[in-house]
Amino acid sequence: MPKISLKAANMPQSPIRKLVPFAEKAKKDGKKVYHLNIGQPDIETPETLLNAIKNFAPKVVEYSHSAGIESYRKKLVTYYNRYNIALDYSNIMITTGGSEAIEIAMMTCLNEGDEVIIPEPFYANYNGFSTQANVVVKPIRSYIETGFALPPITEFEKLISSKTKAIMICNPGNPTGYLYSREELNSLKEIVKKHDLFLFSDEVYREFCYDGKEYISVMHLDGIENNVVMLDSVSKRYSACGARIGAMISKNKEVMEAALKFGQARLSPPTFGQVASEAAIDTPDSYFEKVKTEYVSRRDFVVKALNEMDGVFCTKPSGAFYCIARLPIDNADKFCQWLLEEFNFNNQTVMLAPATGFYSTANAGLNEVRLAYVLNLTDLKNAMQSLSEALKVYPGRKVKAKEAVA
Amino acid sequence: MPKISLKAANMPQSPIRKLVPFAEKAKKDGKKVYHLNIGQPDIETPETLLNAIKNFAPKVVEYSHSAGIESYRKKLVTYYNRYNIALDYSNIMITTGGSEAIEIAMMTCLNEGDEVIIPEPFYANYNGFSTQANVVVKPIRSYIETGFALPPITEFEKLISSKTKAIMICNPGNPTGYLYSREELNSLKEIVKKHDLFLFSDEVYREFCYDGKEYISVMHLDGIENNVVMLDSVSKRYSACGARIGAMISKNKEVMEAALKFGQARLSPPTFGQVASEAAIDTPDSYFEKVKTEYVSRRDFVVKALNEMDGVFCTKPSGAFYCIARLPIDNADKFCQWLLEEFNFNNQTVMLAPATGFYSTANAGLNEVRLAYVLNLTDLKNAMQSLSEALKVYPGRKVKAKEAVA
Repeated sequence: MPKISLKAANMPQSPIRKLVPFAEKAKKDGKKVYHLNIGQPDIETPETLLNAIKNFAPKVVEYSHSAGIESYRKKLVTYYNRYNIALDYSNIMITTGGSEAIEIAMMTCLNEGDEVIIPEPFYANYNGFSTQANVVVKPIRSYIETGFALPPITEFEKLISSKTKAIMICNPGNPTGYLYSREELNSLKEIVKKHDLFLFSDEVYREFCYDGKEYISVMHLDGIENNVVMLDSVSKRYSACGARIGAMISKNKEVMEAALKFGQARLSPPTFGQVASEAAIDTPDSYFEKVKTEYVSRRDFVVKALNEMDGVFCTKPSGAFYCIARLPIDNADKFCQWLLEEFNFNNQTVMLAPATGFYSTANAGLNEVRLAYVLNLTDLKNAMQSLSEALKVYPGRKVKAKEAVA
Repeated sequence: MPKISLKAANMPQSPIRKLVPFAEKAKKDGKKVYHLNIGQPDIETPETLLNAIKNFAPKVVEYSHSAGIESYRKKLVTYYNRYNIALDYSNIMITTGGSEAIEIAMMTCLNEGDEVIIPEPFYANYNGFSTQANVVVKPIRSYIETGFALPPITEFEKLISSKTKAIMICNPGNPTGYLYSREELNSLKEIVKKHDLFLFSDEVYREFCYDGKEYISVMHLDGIENNVVMLDSVSKRYSACGARIGAMISKNKEVMEAALKFGQARLSPPTFGQVASEAAIDTPDSYFEKVKTEYVSRRDFVVKALNEMDGVFCTKPSGAFYCIARLPIDNADKFCQWLLEEFNFNNQTVMLAPATGFYSTANAGLNEVRLAYVLNLTDLKNAMQSLSEALKVYPGRKVKAKEAVA
């Protein structure tokens, strides 16, 4: 029997999806599982998008242009204009989800063995895409105490070597919910300029900025236009994760021309999803206002509930729909599996993502979990109650309950 | 300005798509261009597929399972059963087009520097996917005189080294239209078994086998179940290229488990396309009978018309909807560009794919082109007339016209 490749052997399992068999078993056994483990919102997809699909009546479902349907790319220019991002449609290549945008950006810009610096915790699949591209991730720790603010730029300087080719950020952040300030982005701009690095920025959560805080894009940074590659997706924006439509965006012509060669090899991004996403650009503001209000109330509820649990800590994130909580536990992987396998409260349990999968540094995040507040308030209340009860009885609890300490 | 990667620089341009700017220019100038260059059929997508999309009314367009929607995978088992291919749904991973199936299969099975033997001419994007995976293509020539039959197995033996990890075929063949016989597949089985290689087989044209000839799948070959990986797509089957739904299929559990890790990194294949493709399995046989009758009449017309042109040769293919023709020209790339830039007949011209892009050997196929007979008979008649006139006046004509010789 022929052997699989080393790359396949080294490819990390998705830390978010690897617990799925345990969840399936729990459900088979009749338990109600609250899914806070994955960024699959319950928010309804807007009618603009769904109606476009209903009314799409082609005679032939054809390939699109490898860079995407031209009218969609042109309409995206108007969408980005709303965020003061000035683009030409030739700066935009439509991809199959944000995932493919990252894959193609890495293959286009990075050689094997090149290093990319990423503040951690970071979106777990950056590890997978780096493995695919034979790229080395150099993590820099950010910490829960500061809400996962950008690490000091001196920490970046320390890591930069002749192999460093890029810095990658996610803003607003998954899994942290952190929204980078203008100062933080300016400091990134300086270091990118100084060392002539690529700056990859995953900005798929731009619609989800709270408390009146400002969204600053890497596309707003003057003077590094040829260094910046923005990675985007409609998945979260329109609660349309299954459409698998994203975009790779750069003003660097050489980068976009090379990226198109990878795009041509796979022929084209999905036609249905593009038609739907083009129409979705006309989604009224009222839709987003409603969604934001909903997420803010969920966030406020979850963060308060978590901090009220004995030995639990989390800060209030300003963006996206995730937060990371520190729990009084020995091992987040064990705990998350135990929640599904061993625990129930009124026949309910909760599925969380162990934060270990979001760190590249070994043993980092061992007592942290990521929660996606993608369920309605009633479900979130039940989920928080289950979690609270679980922490009381988990055999691997590290910090004693307050009553016990007192 | 940071440099793009070596891989990006080395990534081949699609030989099929690189002429697109010249075609766009020709159309802008008011010329009618007959597209025989690309496998985008004009055949109508079946209603089964289109209605499923019209009636798909989810509240949320969710991610699917990374391996695809379970009900679709299970229904595909019944589809393959019709071809005497016995599968369990766990043998099937749904991919974003056949393209992603090939990408993931290569990453899963082949190490950097590993060699894959492919009879040439072959589907041009195999070169691109090999570049992406850092895999080395070792081509073996097949020849127009035999209709591009499988090269003698002794030629494969000559190429096999410690680096050889796989053989890849396309059956029925793109760009050749050749349908491998049971004997040819058995000879491949023996060599695969002897050297314990992977056997990748791209079988996306199985619906298009003509003249009562039998379709033999690699999945029919006993005793090499752990070596075989079948690559599939709905694009041609249902004239739904834009759906971007394919499949990677193998009974090798280790391969499928590893492949799923790449699948998890990109989250899921497109939901709309999967819903459509699942419904399409119920497309009545009458649809395919009609389509086959149409393709056979197109093929017969095109092959006859070509062979009637002075100095042109092609054989009659038994499958797919392509044929390769040898033309009396100096250079197919130049000729195809000239057709778009310089030539017109009654303000019409034809776009062909230079065969050079389908060969890995330098300078092979210099006087060959691939034609996709994906237009209706009226258009094909006009296209063949244009080509015939073009060959008479092309400045790079090599073989003199009969009249001139006589």
